[in-house]
Amino acid sequence: MSPINLMPNAFDPNSAEELSPALRTMVARRQEVLGPSMKLFYRKPVEVARASGVHLYDSEGNSYLDAYNNVPSVGHCHPRVVEAIANQAAVLNSNTRYLTSQVLDYSERILATHSEGLDKIMYACSGSEANDLALRIARYATGNDAVIVTSNAYHGITATVAEFSPSLGKNVPLGLRTVTIPAPEGVSIGDVTEAANRFAADVEAAVAQIERHGMRLAALIVDTLFASDGLVPEPAGFLAPSIDIVHRAGGLFIADEVQAGFARSGDEMWGYQRHGLTPDLVTMGKPMGNGLPISAVVARAEHLVQFGRDIRYFNTFAGNSVCIAAATATLDVLEQEGLQQNAQTVGKQMREGLAELSRRYAFLVQPRGAGLFLAADLIDPETGAPDEAAALAVVNGLRDRRILVSTSGTDENILKVRPPLPFSAANAEVFLTELDEVLHELR
Amino acid sequence: MSPINLMPNAFDPNSAEELSPALRTMVARRQEVLGPSMKLFYRKPVEVARASGVHLYDSEGNSYLDAYNNVPSVGHCHPRVVEAIANQAAVLNSNTRYLTSQVLDYSERILATHSEGLDKIMYACSGSEANDLALRIARYATGNDAVIVTSNAYHGITATVAEFSPSLGKNVPLGLRTVTIPAPEGVSIGDVTEAANRFAADVEAAVAQIERHGMRLAALIVDTLFASDGLVPEPAGFLAPSIDIVHRAGGLFIADEVQAGFARSGDEMWGYQRHGLTPDLVTMGKPMGNGLPISAVVARAEHLVQFGRDIRYFNTFAGNSVCIAAATATLDVLEQEGLQQNAQTVGKQMREGLAELSRRYAFLVQPRGAGLFLAADLIDPETGAPDEAAALAVVNGLRDRRILVSTSGTDENILKVRPPLPFSAANAEVFLTELDEVLHELR
Repeated sequence: MSPINLMPNAFDPNSAEELSPALRTMVARRQEVLGPSMKLFYRKPVEVARASGVHLYDSEGNSYLDAYNNVPSVGHCHPRVVEAIANQAAVLNSNTRYLTSQVLDYSERILATHSEGLDKIMYACSGSEANDLALRIARYATGNDAVIVTSNAYHGITATVAEFSPSLGKNVPLGLRTVTIPAPEGVSIGDVTEAANRFAADVEAAVAQIERHGMRLAALIVDTLFASDGLVPEPAGFLAPSIDIVHRAGGLFIADEVQAGFARSGDEMWGYQRHGLTPDLVTMGKPMGNGLPISAVVARAEHLVQFGRDIRYFNTFAGNSVCIAAATATLDVLEQEGLQQNAQTVGKQMREGLAELSRRYAFLVQPRGAGLFLAADLIDPETGAPDEAAALAVVNGLRDRRILVSTSGTDENILKVRPPLPFSAANAEVFLTELDEVLHELR
Repeated sequence: MSPINLMPNAFDPNSAEELSPALRTMVARRQEVLGPSMKLFYRKPVEVARASGVHLYDSEGNSYLDAYNNVPSVGHCHPRVVEAIANQAAVLNSNTRYLTSQVLDYSERILATHSEGLDKIMYACSGSEANDLALRIARYATGNDAVIVTSNAYHGITATVAEFSPSLGKNVPLGLRTVTIPAPEGVSIGDVTEAANRFAADVEAAVAQIERHGMRLAALIVDTLFASDGLVPEPAGFLAPSIDIVHRAGGLFIADEVQAGFARSGDEMWGYQRHGLTPDLVTMGKPMGNGLPISAVVARAEHLVQFGRDIRYFNTFAGNSVCIAAATATLDVLEQEGLQQNAQTVGKQMREGLAELSRRYAFLVQPRGAGLFLAADLIDPETGAPDEAAALAVVNGLRDRRILVSTSGTDENILKVRPPLPFSAANAEVFLTELDEVLHELR
């Protein structure tokens, strides 16, 4: 299997001769020192020297419109976040084994954004670490081992989390205690009751399979926007009935909000809130510190009692003062610049624009999205089959026009659009116009 | 088991009434929002408002001499590191899927500090993630599963790494494929050949046990200073013969440099270099970014080939521009301020001071150390039994005199002294004088 198949939107270092001498040198240096797992995006990689708001700039001053990066969620190098990081780094960067007020102030604020009952927080450094910790907690609290995930889920890259991240591909075996269910067919069904029944029936079947093998359920974990399953935002609410099934089976419901959280969906701060349920554990990561490594697990207190009493646990960098300062400023900006509202408004414009393009191009189907997380499938219009090549052509066509997006889904034929949240109506116009031209060329 | 037993040097929230009203409020707020796993140090916790160099300061302006924190390794809030973070955060915080020069410059520099043959690097966020990744690589490269660790080793807190971190205690079961060997008796033996033979024999026995159970060895992983085993720095060289045994068994040798690396030992940049061997994989973490979350795996290229080819792997925050800027400035300071030399010089002064105290106090034995990582055991002088209570009394006695240290070892009777590397001769004098007085009071 070539690296290209592993990650369809990866640069193939064997095609470096097409690059400028300067980029070729950088690629050669990468080949020399970085592990080969560390891959670049795009047929022709993007060199970046600086970034601001929703734009990246290369060394020659060319600007790229960022319609992809959800980590710098309140905008690249947001001055308030930059200032908070600089100020805190100069004064104190403590771990949580000393008493400091910053981590308490932030914890109180972020817990207040969650639904009632979710009243305790633990910090980690990455989404992978948060999901790894959430599973440890779920297993310890329930005494059970088995995990249910959707068929192309991605939850992270620690050894344990990789065992329940089927999107990593066939070379990363699922754990013996991992059971997959189909990705929800919510969007294609449309009706919330029917979608909910279908998903609930799949969870029931997975529980039966688990118990038939003498295991018991520790957790169902879902990305509440099903990003790596190809994005299934609608009909919001279809997840709600599954939590009772999980509880009856003795397990916990873990909402992985690394993708869906921090107002990305436009509708709510957290993806699970769109579904009208309150999880047992919630994990969050990527946009939390606008780029600094910080993540967290939020939980109902009862699930942490035994773990806290019995298990020696400390994560050195987790909740350190500088990352907490970045997270605090990120939350300030999110609230004060009305970015959830912007995600909703501009997200609607983007969704409508995608729908309009879909009506004009038969190979672009199922336009969908929640807030500023959008997707559409590229297919062969004759057969309806997924068309990975077309998706890659669109992604690279946009990249040549200096607009950044990527692909997603089991067949990697899904256009994934996920800009920083300050993406404006004008940015959306540019994106849709350029996408139209790329699609036109493909036709 | 009470939290106090889980972590002997933890604050017991039930004794909060002894604190000032302000601290009591902070403790109550912590109890309210943080998971109970997140514990504070000391019988009476230390509140911290700012820090600089080797000192921490509380809100009332009291200063604490830091003889414990190895994360702010070049000194708390070092101005060059602070400046580098602030400058980079304002310009760009990119992930590694775009071409940027910073991560290449740093990678080339840090690889040059390693021994020949260690020529590739992969980034992660924490020491736990680095060890988790190193094990994934070792297992994939060898096709084997079993891991050998020392009896009270600590390598991190992901679910998988916890399975080979016996120091986490009996509530965290070792993995079925984890085999422990005794902590090396290097210091007590003194003679390098004898210590090497003893350690090699233990590794041989573990390999035999692994193969008798139908498994094969993936890796021996050791902290090259054996910090959580109670610190075994001498006789340097005793690890060397074990690498051949590991290779003959089909496994890889992983040096965990999270504690020993970045010049801590005074003698060399990396702990494995003191032992005259070149590992297959090296992990590093804590001091790497002087407090920002960054860690790495350094490897012989051959071990990464298959993993890079077959395994989809990306760590979002790993190697991001801001953390790389912090790591670069940290390395600058380490080199330009001669901190390895300082660790050696002041380390020697500290070791001699501890030895002198040990001669005067019969309950303080086995003073030892490498550079600015020092230890000594507290025992019952009548029976020679480990005296955890005495160790805690020393740690809290020093804390009351505003000097920060902690405990270590299976019996938690070991004084652990591990200051930031700019710790001066004058700081060492203060430390030794105060320790003398605390020991005197205990007598």
